[in-house]
Amino acid sequence: MKINFITLFPNYYKPFVSESITKRAIEKNKLEVKIIDFRKFADNKHNKVDDIVYGGGQGMLLMVEPIDKAMETTKGKRILLSPQGKPFTQAKAKELAKEKELTFIAGHYEGFDERIRKLIDEEISIGDYVLTGGELPSMVLADAIVRLIPGVIKEESHANDSFQNALLDHPQYTRPREYKNMKVPEVLLNGNHAKIEEWRKQKQLEKTKKVRPDIIERGDDEK
Amino acid sequence: MKINFITLFPNYYKPFVSESITKRAIEKNKLEVKIIDFRKFADNKHNKVDDIVYGGGQGMLLMVEPIDKAMETTKGKRILLSPQGKPFTQAKAKELAKEKELTFIAGHYEGFDERIRKLIDEEISIGDYVLTGGELPSMVLADAIVRLIPGVIKEESHANDSFQNALLDHPQYTRPREYKNMKVPEVLLNGNHAKIEEWRKQKQLEKTKKVRPDIIERGDDEK
Repeated sequence: MKINFITLFPNYYKPFVSESITKRAIEKNKLEVKIIDFRKFADNKHNKVDDIVYGGGQGMLLMVEPIDKAMETTKGKRILLSPQGKPFTQAKAKELAKEKELTFIAGHYEGFDERIRKLIDEEISIGDYVLTGGELPSMVLADAIVRLIPGVIKEESHANDSFQNALLDHPQYTRPREYKNMKVPEVLLNGNHAKIEEWRKQKQLEKTKKVRPDIIERGDDEK
Repeated sequence: MKINFITLFPNYYKPFVSESITKRAIEKNKLEVKIIDFRKFADNKHNKVDDIVYGGGQGMLLMVEPIDKAMETTKGKRILLSPQGKPFTQAKAKELAKEKELTFIAGHYEGFDERIRKLIDEEISIGDYVLTGGELPSMVLADAIVRLIPGVIKEESHANDSFQNALLDHPQYTRPREYKNMKVPEVLLNGNHAKIEEWRKQKQLEKTKKVRPDIIERGDDEK
């Protein structure tokens, strides 16, 4: 897969490419990443990429042309990150993990010219909150997608992903058996695998009912 | 405000601190950031922070002790990032922006010892998808929160935030008036401010009804 990030802050992406799962995917030849600074496509002396709001309003808006020119250097699906987009889900991550090339466009500042929306394929939001730009959201999408590309992480690791079977994960414990008076549940220590499975399934249900009853009610995309 | 990030990947946070709104907030003395590598708190020769799963299971789990020891160096609210947490919202960002000190704990690998959940104050999820770690989510929370600290960005900039009045933002346009046959709507160019306001309000409603009818139905936390 190839992922292009269109942004005003190319440095922001450096550790994401050099430190994380992205690095591993690149080393395994499963992924190619290109960071495109759209300021380089500004067709004016001062590399200006924003301008005033027609009709009046606070701040400046990103202009359509530099972003469009940057997008023209890419292929595949163009995804704009914005709080106004469709909420991102694990099902969407799975769908996008099948693409050959993806381009993520990170807005910044106050907003962007509406016409940018006519030149993209999808507008996605990572959640109902406001951020200063689309950089973090674009990395969130890339992280969720890249870990689903076959061969990037072990297949078995996905089995217990939250939302994988429309339930949250069950509690897990590691050493030591006791820490500050908190003990590992006996059932996990006695080697009775049928009992352990039963306990885990029950805890998954309990936890999901308590924390996220909405997941059970709506079924979820994952079923 | 002081924000502590507890993580195994301290470098991951570098551009977030040196490039973004965080940098501005630090320069204005509105924010102090501390990155805490919890591997330094591992009480063993190889700085091991994870171990096998009791009862059997794939992968390794983060142990409770190194994270607990790292948390003991901090004050204030401890927030664990995980897909099993309560969904993050703009209302939550506003609430957390009032705190003096916040500590974000980023898990990684397959998961963590359940007992960590007993030592934190809140568990928050940025959305219904699975990521490789809590680093990006912790930066997402910090970004949403820091921009709400008074004096970090202009007060007026918040007026049109999405979700601010339980509606998505209206379309905005900047120069040029025409790009690839796409024109700026006439109403925004004639200087009739009452008409412009009316058009914007109507477009906000239309857009929200089309893209996120759930926001209108549920009222939203922000009203």
